[in-house]
Amino acid sequence: MTIDETYTAPFVLAKFKSPNPDAKTIIFYQHYDTVPADNDQPWTDEPFRLTVRKGYMYGRGVDDDKGHITARLTALRKYIREVGDLPVNITFMMEGAEESASTDLEKYLEKYRDDLLPADLLVWEQGNRNSKGQLEITGGNKGIITFDLSVESADVDIHSKFGAVIESASWYLLNAISSMRDDQGRILIDGIYDKVIQPNEREMDLIETYAIENADSLRKIYGLKLPILESDRRDFLKTYYFEPALSIEGISTGYQGQGVKTILPAQAKAKMEMRLVPGLTPEYVLERIKAHLKKKDSTVLR
Amino acid sequence: MTIDETYTAPFVLAKFKSPNPDAKTIIFYQHYDTVPADNDQPWTDEPFRLTVRKGYMYGRGVDDDKGHITARLTALRKYIREVGDLPVNITFMMEGAEESASTDLEKYLEKYRDDLLPADLLVWEQGNRNSKGQLEITGGNKGIITFDLSVESADVDIHSKFGAVIESASWYLLNAISSMRDDQGRILIDGIYDKVIQPNEREMDLIETYAIENADSLRKIYGLKLPILESDRRDFLKTYYFEPALSIEGISTGYQGQGVKTILPAQAKAKMEMRLVPGLTPEYVLERIKAHLKKKDSTVLR
Repeated sequence: MTIDETYTAPFVLAKFKSPNPDAKTIIFYQHYDTVPADNDQPWTDEPFRLTVRKGYMYGRGVDDDKGHITARLTALRKYIREVGDLPVNITFMMEGAEESASTDLEKYLEKYRDDLLPADLLVWEQGNRNSKGQLEITGGNKGIITFDLSVESADVDIHSKFGAVIESASWYLLNAISSMRDDQGRILIDGIYDKVIQPNEREMDLIETYAIENADSLRKIYGLKLPILESDRRDFLKTYYFEPALSIEGISTGYQGQGVKTILPAQAKAKMEMRLVPGLTPEYVLERIKAHLKKKDSTVLR
Repeated sequence: MTIDETYTAPFVLAKFKSPNPDAKTIIFYQHYDTVPADNDQPWTDEPFRLTVRKGYMYGRGVDDDKGHITARLTALRKYIREVGDLPVNITFMMEGAEESASTDLEKYLEKYRDDLLPADLLVWEQGNRNSKGQLEITGGNKGIITFDLSVESADVDIHSKFGAVIESASWYLLNAISSMRDDQGRILIDGIYDKVIQPNEREMDLIETYAIENADSLRKIYGLKLPILESDRRDFLKTYYFEPALSIEGISTGYQGQGVKTILPAQAKAKMEMRLVPGLTPEYVLERIKAHLKKKDSTVLR
C-alpha cells in the first residue's frame, strides 16, 4: 500500500496480488471525499452519523463513495479468508478530491503510471440496479469537453432602431453556435467525424442485446414533449453510445424580464459542451472548434 | 375644442383654421402625462416645481411633453397676434396615457377619424438638436412588432449524456430563431420582402442629402467592436431607413452561472422584435412569422 500525501488530498494505492503469473489485473477506482452536507438538501437523517433502517444505510458517502470502498474491501477480505489465493490481481486506487474535479488526478496518474499499467479492466465507483432489480455492468462512458463562448459587440446595449445595420452580440453568438450543428444533431465542424472510431460488430451486438435505454423510456422518464433525434432502435443506440454530440448547457443575452426592451444586446454568453467518443481527444476537438470559429469570423461574418 | 372624457385619461382636440380654403393641414400630436417621479432617478430639482437656471427649465414634463405643448401653443398665439390669419390649418391632438402605452389611442383615432383626416403632415412630440446645434426634422420612424418565443421540451432538465439522441429546448429555440434570418441580416420568412415598399428617388435623395447617421459615428458612439452590416453609405442609409430588421432583445436558457452544468435544458425563452417599414403591418408580419414557425416544426424539426 502506498499513501502519497504530496497532494492536497492524499492518494491511496493498495495492491492485492494473485500468485498466478498470468493473472489479469482489475483496478477499482474510488474516492473517499463527499460533497458538502449543505442545508440546501432536505436531510432526513443526521448526515455524519450512520443510520440503518429496513436494511438501508443512511449517511454521508454511503452511496458516493465510502460505501463502495467498504463493500469492495469487505468482499475481498471475505474471498481471501474463505477461498484463499486471488485469481486476479486487484489494485485499489483512491483519491480524496473527486468532488473537487479530481484536481490532482492527472499528475498522480503520470507519477504512478508503472503501477497502474498494464491493467485489463477498470471498475468505476458506482453500480446501478435496473428497473427489473438486476445489477448492471455499464461498459464505457462518453467523454466531455466544455467551453464557454462570449461575444462583446459594443460598449453598451444599442437602441433597436439600428437593428437593420448593426449586428448584436446575440446574433453573432447565435450564428456562431448554429454554424456548428445542423438541426438533426449532426456536427458541422470539419474533422470531427473523420476521427470517430465506428463501433465494431461485436460492440453493436452487445448494445443491441443488453442496452436498456430506449426512446420510449426516455420519453416517459423525462416527459419529453418533442420528437427524439433517432427513432429506429439500432440507430438510436449507435448514436447514443458511439456518436459525438454538441450541446448547449445554457445561454444568456440581453433582456430577460417581463415585457419588452428595445435593445440590441452588447453582450452574449453560452456554455457549451461536446460529448466525446473513441477517437476524439479533448485537445483535438478544442482545436477544431477554434479553427471553425476563426474561419467563420473571417468569412461569413466578414 | 373638444375634450372627450369618456376614456381613462381625457383626449383634447383643438383646431385652428386658416381662412384659405386650399390651406394644408398640420396635426401636432402631444401628450400631457409624464412618467412617474420615482426615487430610482437622481433628482437634482424638485420634480413638481418648475425651476429655471441659466436659461434651462427643470421640472416634470418640461421635455416630455408639457414643454412642447406650451411652446407650440405659445408660438401659435404669438403668430396669430402679430401676423394674423394662419396660412395652414393646425390641429392639436393631446392624450393623457402616452406613458401607459397609449391604451385608448386606437379607439379614439377611429372615433375622430373625420376630424383628423385628411391631414398633410403629422408632427410628433419632440425635436432634437444635432451635434452642430441645428434643429432637426426627422422624417418617419420604423414601426415595431415584438413577440416572445418559448420552448418547453421536457418536464425537467436532462443529463447531457443523452445529447446525441435528445434535442434540448435550447437547440429547438436556436434552430427556430436561426431559420428566420441569415447572418447578413436578411430575413428568411416568406412574404416579408414582397410587401416592403421600396423608397422612391426623392426619398433616397432626401436621406442621402440630409441623413446624419453613418457607420463611423455609430462605431464611435457605441464602441462597436464588430463590423457594421452595410458599409457603403447609400446601402447603409437605405437599409437603416427602409429595410425591416429581425432582432433579438434577449435569450435565456439553461445554466448561466459559474463553471459547468451537464444538462440539456428543458426550457428556453427569447424576446424578439421586428422593425417595420412602409408596406408591413403588424398583423401581416405576425401571421407570416407564425406560418414560418409552423412549417419549420412540421418538416425540419419533424
